[in-house]
Amino acid sequence: MKIRVGIVGYGNLGKATERMLIKHNKYKLVAIFSRRMVTSAYGTIVEPYEAYSAYKHKIDIMLLCGGSKYDLIPQTEEMAKYFDCINTFDTHAKIEKHLHLINKIAKQSRHRCIISCGWDPGLFSVIRALFYKISNVEPYTFWGKGISMGHSDAIRTISGVDDGVQFTIPNSDAIMLAKKGCLDDSTPKHFRECFVLSENGNKSKIEGSIKNIPNYFKGQPTSVRFVSREELLRLKSKMFHSGEIINNFTDTSNQKYSLTFKVKMSSNPDFTAKIMVLYINALVALKKNCITGAVTPLDIPVSLLFDNHQKMLRNFC
Amino acid sequence: MKIRVGIVGYGNLGKATERMLIKHNKYKLVAIFSRRMVTSAYGTIVEPYEAYSAYKHKIDIMLLCGGSKYDLIPQTEEMAKYFDCINTFDTHAKIEKHLHLINKIAKQSRHRCIISCGWDPGLFSVIRALFYKISNVEPYTFWGKGISMGHSDAIRTISGVDDGVQFTIPNSDAIMLAKKGCLDDSTPKHFRECFVLSENGNKSKIEGSIKNIPNYFKGQPTSVRFVSREELLRLKSKMFHSGEIINNFTDTSNQKYSLTFKVKMSSNPDFTAKIMVLYINALVALKKNCITGAVTPLDIPVSLLFDNHQKMLRNFC
Repeated sequence: MKIRVGIVGYGNLGKATERMLIKHNKYKLVAIFSRRMVTSAYGTIVEPYEAYSAYKHKIDIMLLCGGSKYDLIPQTEEMAKYFDCINTFDTHAKIEKHLHLINKIAKQSRHRCIISCGWDPGLFSVIRALFYKISNVEPYTFWGKGISMGHSDAIRTISGVDDGVQFTIPNSDAIMLAKKGCLDDSTPKHFRECFVLSENGNKSKIEGSIKNIPNYFKGQPTSVRFVSREELLRLKSKMFHSGEIINNFTDTSNQKYSLTFKVKMSSNPDFTAKIMVLYINALVALKKNCITGAVTPLDIPVSLLFDNHQKMLRNFC
Repeated sequence: MKIRVGIVGYGNLGKATERMLIKHNKYKLVAIFSRRMVTSAYGTIVEPYEAYSAYKHKIDIMLLCGGSKYDLIPQTEEMAKYFDCINTFDTHAKIEKHLHLINKIAKQSRHRCIISCGWDPGLFSVIRALFYKISNVEPYTFWGKGISMGHSDAIRTISGVDDGVQFTIPNSDAIMLAKKGCLDDSTPKHFRECFVLSENGNKSKIEGSIKNIPNYFKGQPTSVRFVSREELLRLKSKMFHSGEIINNFTDTSNQKYSLTFKVKMSSNPDFTAKIMVLYINALVALKKNCITGAVTPLDIPVSLLFDNHQKMLRNFC
């Protein structure tokens, strides 16, 4: 019998997840839950968000595809009462607290959840943690070129901004220094390229406000360009992204090592969806082993992603 | 109380493991077991191999640092009766059977073992398996430049060869094709550079025999050079190595991805020892959870390498 899956949220990630699931022979996509009036290009049933509780016995696993800023915390807290869940929660400072609360809810409802399960956080978290344990030196992560959703959101909070998008571009000088193992805070790791639509705003004031947003742009090399609605839409449709983790070090025996992990993708939401769908297998395995609560990909061994342990050993060990 | 560790085998890997352990504040290196008459430069007790059973209650974890060809199978089968064990067994075709048997022995003796736990197999196995589950396409692994122990052993089986060493060199054309996702068997992945000492052998016959060893050299671009004893010793002391896993693919939605994992090291045995020592933490965690039997790094979540789950989440998620 196929595993019955639902999707919450029907933006870029929800749509990419739908495309992944409908091609998958192990999973049946039962319904998409959205707060907006939308229709699926693939004929999937779309329900209003509130309808989820009626699916308690019709869906096994819910993939939460909303944004970290407003959606994922309240939605996961609610969904974990009814379903096994996976989300891609990426507000770094709140992951620990979120994990703790979802763990409590899922244990009570006898479900299991994997949180922060995309490419970063998720896949990249696993590699960073592994590198750190090998090197005992904090690895560097470089992102881009690609759109940062969090930074784009931050731009849009500025008064006078109608819309905006931010491209993160890694600083090649910083990458070079990281490879030599001597990057410090004096060299910026990324450039922040902002594109802003403001039809009636004070442009120089907006530029100043953006460059001063703490944690996002302040103290970082940031450019702000004002563009037309059409140009902004074109820029916002760019889905490519990349990421690189670098961990070069010399150990106490004076031996030198260089560890590098690099991913490039033509579509950020498709790659995120791929990781979420991949970890469904682990969720099913946790259920079989009667494990409840919340975990992150750091708690999942690679073997839980495989059905055939023997084949895994033969082909990859 | 410190975890009490023993080392079996005192070649390059055993020595590197000793250097790692004596600097570690969580572990106490109790003794080294060797079939040869050796002394430790660091004053570690060296016992004859047979003395291990007397250490049943004095050592918690045994790190097996012998060779895969002759040592690791019989030694792990024996040690798993007395201790929790880690080995780096790398004879690919025999891993499954070895795991199965050690699992049986360790379950009987109520111990736990991690086998094939070096950088390859081990760290690279984890990455290959992860890449494959993401891409659904077999990843390519390139090794070198560096000495291949297995291929060097194979050279030394040829009659007339006094000693020999083989450097594996990746074919940059093959790497380029792998990055384009179109490498096939018609392009050799590696060049095999053999250096041979033969004082009384028939050199052209030896060269022919080496190039015809099935699974090792036959059908692969192989060069054989005869060198002096001094030159061979100098070459055999080269400890650097590297490895790269490449998995570039286009998915069914026509999106393109490139996954790369790369490691360079100045000392192959030191890096292998680092991975072994790293996984001691997982062995301790398995013991705490009353899990017995044999596993590989594919079965170990990254979080088992950490003592502080909270710090792990904060720093790497």
